Amino acid sequence: MKLYDYFRSSAAYRVRIALGLKGLAPERAFVHLRRGAQREDDYLALNPQGLVPSLVTDDGAVLTQSLAIIEWLDETHPRPPLLPSDAAGRARVRALALAVACDIHPLNNLRVLNYLTGTLGVTEAQKNGWYRYWCDTGLEALETQLARDAATGAFCHGALPTLADICLVPQLANARRVDLDLAPYPKLLAIEAACLALPAFAAAAPARQPDAE
Amino acid sequence: MKLYDYFRSSAAYRVRIALGLKGLAPERAFVHLRRGAQREDDYLALNPQGLVPSLVTDDGAVLTQSLAIIEWLDETHPRPPLLPSDAAGRARVRALALAVACDIHPLNNLRVLNYLTGTLGVTEAQKNGWYRYWCDTGLEALETQLARDAATGAFCHGALPTLADICLVPQLANARRVDLDLAPYPKLLAIEAACLALPAFAAAAPARQPDAE
Repeated sequence: MKLYDYFRSSAAYRVRIALGLKGLAPERAFVHLRRGAQREDDYLALNPQGLVPSLVTDDGAVLTQSLAIIEWLDETHPRPPLLPSDAAGRARVRALALAVACDIHPLNNLRVLNYLTGTLGVTEAQKNGWYRYWCDTGLEALETQLARDAATGAFCHGALPTLADICLVPQLANARRVDLDLAPYPKLLAIEAACLALPAFAAAAPARQPDAE
Repeated sequence: MKLYDYFRSSAAYRVRIALGLKGLAPERAFVHLRRGAQREDDYLALNPQGLVPSLVTDDGAVLTQSLAIIEWLDETHPRPPLLPSDAAGRARVRALALAVACDIHPLNNLRVLNYLTGTLGVTEAQKNGWYRYWCDTGLEALETQLARDAATGAFCHGALPTLADICLVPQLANARRVDLDLAPYPKLLAIEAACLALPAFAAAAPARQPDAE
């Protein structure tokens, strides 16, 4: 198995956490997004979207999209499970994960920020305002959903980490990079603290990767 | 079962297709996004994200996020399946679906377009340029992925519709609304034609909904 990774990609960060929870340590290659390595022919041949992560399986299949990769890991390496055993629980966990992966993260991606400043010519302050606005909008809804639901435990769903926590922790790391005030999100911060106490989450942090700058 | 729907929401459109393929016709309520009904207290109490769709199950659980809802439908109503039976196939289908749901659609959402024109003050032409740019970027990668892979059949994955087709068709409908030139995407157009020949896809189209304007 080989992971195409970049320390600061929060989608790659999710996959690193999942691999760690499963006790897997694949070979790794680093795709330097800020230098544009994702747009080089070799990488595009592997992943036409030019995004990280990609995971090449032992039989040569190229898997893309972090959530699809994590579902595959969970199906092929079932212990410990990253989704609850009941359909309603799985729907809840997937929805929490997608609330990050669809409704926050894509808006704060490097390529989107580059379009805002490059093509649309918005100022640095406007760009940071955009970043914070979509973070806050998404985190506020997550805080409400998690705080009011008895299914929330030490983690997003009960007493064990799931796909939802795997998406939440990298998003909070991103929020901190733009100095977002996280005080309005006590439930999210408590869950993050529970996650970061686990070696798989801690070891996946951007600053601890071999390509970190 | 009750679906909170809006004719022009492409996330709701995905769920309508899935329900149709499963032969399900739940009760429906319509949330008028352009009039801001998604931000009214009643709806926010149901879905703190203020997005459609939401699906209330027969035992009162509120499911959110279109892909989580569709995975739940597939688990609780397995025939016909919306995902392949093998893990690698499921990973491929989910990745194709997420390439639309994470990397195209969130950037072209109504709330994002409103932020561009309202808060950032971009022109109508710049807004449409943004819309087309992210559509083209995403569809180009999908065309490449689908055209080169023997796993692609009449549909995105083989001879039957899956979650990937369910995401693709509404995205192409959106692309047409901004007059995107779809000629560079012959594989996507062929798959779309195969889908629209099926009653479940045709009946889910925005123009055929009771709340269509």
